[in-house]
Amino acid sequence: MTKATDRTAGKAPRTRRKRDDEVVAAAAKVFYERGYSAATVQDIADELGILKGSLYHYIKTKEDLLFRLFEQVHEEVEAILEEVLAVEGINPLERIQLYVHRQVVHNLNDLTRISIYYHELDRLSEDRKRSVIAWRRRHDRFLRDLITEAQQQGLADPSSDPGLLANCVFATVIWPYRWFRAGHGDTPESIAETCTAFVSRGVAGGFPMN
Amino acid sequence: MTKATDRTAGKAPRTRRKRDDEVVAAAAKVFYERGYSAATVQDIADELGILKGSLYHYIKTKEDLLFRLFEQVHEEVEAILEEVLAVEGINPLERIQLYVHRQVVHNLNDLTRISIYYHELDRLSEDRKRSVIAWRRRHDRFLRDLITEAQQQGLADPSSDPGLLANCVFATVIWPYRWFRAGHGDTPESIAETCTAFVSRGVAGGFPMN
Repeated sequence: MTKATDRTAGKAPRTRRKRDDEVVAAAAKVFYERGYSAATVQDIADELGILKGSLYHYIKTKEDLLFRLFEQVHEEVEAILEEVLAVEGINPLERIQLYVHRQVVHNLNDLTRISIYYHELDRLSEDRKRSVIAWRRRHDRFLRDLITEAQQQGLADPSSDPGLLANCVFATVIWPYRWFRAGHGDTPESIAETCTAFVSRGVAGGFPMN
Repeated sequence: MTKATDRTAGKAPRTRRKRDDEVVAAAAKVFYERGYSAATVQDIADELGILKGSLYHYIKTKEDLLFRLFEQVHEEVEAILEEVLAVEGINPLERIQLYVHRQVVHNLNDLTRISIYYHELDRLSEDRKRSVIAWRRRHDRFLRDLITEAQQQGLADPSSDPGLLANCVFATVIWPYRWFRAGHGDTPESIAETCTAFVSRGVAGGFPMN
C-alpha cells in the first residue's frame, strides 16, 4: 500500500485492514484465474466493482498488489511461528508437529494466495524478491533450530543433516496445495494429520530410544 | 515429433533418438531461461544452430516440443519404476527406498526439464494435459500399492491412508528441485540419502514391531 495516497489512512485501523484484505483477495483471485502476467489492474478493479482510478489510490503498479500478497502471507506465517514458539510445556518435536499441522491447514484454506505465492516470485523486482528470500530464510532457520534441538535432546535421529531434513519437512508442508481440491473427500484437517504423522516419524526416526 | 515430417525417420533409431534428445534439450533450455510463453521456435532454432525451417521438419508447433519434453520425462520415470519393480529379494519398504533414491538423483541431475515439467502443464492442450494426468495417476498407483503392501506385511504403520502418505512421499521426492543448486555443497546423492531416510521413517513409523 502506498500510504501517502491511501484514502483510508485516516480511518480506523480495522477498516483500513479490512479494505486492504479485500483488495488483495480480489487481486489474488484475478492473478490465480488469468495468471499474473495476463491480469490487468482493470480486471482487479472490475472484480472489486470499483473504478480503476479508485484502485490507484491504493497502489502505484500491479506489482504493488503482488508484493502486498507476499507480505500478507509472511505476516500470517510469522503469526503461526510465534504462536508455536509461545506454547509452554512441549518439547521441540511436539513443536514441529504443531507447526506442520497449523501451516498445512492454513495453506489449504487459502489455496488461491498460496498458489500465487509459490508461482510468481520471479515477477517481483529484485529488491522485493530479496525481501521475500530473507523472510523465507528466517522461516528455514526456525525449523532447522527446532530439528537441531530435537536431535540434541535425543528426540530425533542425529544422523541426518538438520538443514536437509528441514527441506523435507517444508516439502511435506507445502506440496498439498498442488493436488488438494476442496470438497473431494480429504479435508485440510485430515491431510494435516497425515502430514504431521509423516513428518514426526520422518524427523524422529526410531527416537527416543527407550 | 510429427512422424510424417520427421526427416530422420529413415535413419537408424539411435541417430533419430539422439537428434530428438538434442532438440528437446535445446527447447528445455530456452523454455527454462525465457519462460515457455515468451520463448519462440526461432529461439530454439538459434540454440540448436539451425534454421527455423529445419526445426519445422520435426514439429508443427512450439507446444509439440513442450509435449515431447513431458513424454520424455514420463518415459524416464517409467524406466525407474520398472527397474524398481524388477529387483528381486527386497520387501515393499526397500522398494520404496530404492524408488525415492533413484528418482531424487534423476530429478536433480535434470533440473531444467524437471522445472518445466512442474511449471508448464497448463500450457498443454486439454487432450495432452489429460494424457499427462493419466501418466501421473499410474505413478501415484505404483507408490500407493507399495505403501499398502508394506502396511499389509507389517512393515509400515497401517493407521495412515496410503493415498495421503503417497502424496507426502511425492512431496519429498519432488520438492528438492525448487531449492537445489548444483555446486553449493549438497549433491544429488547426499540429498537423495536424506530424502530416502526421511521417507522410509515417515512411512514405516515404529514398524516393524518386533
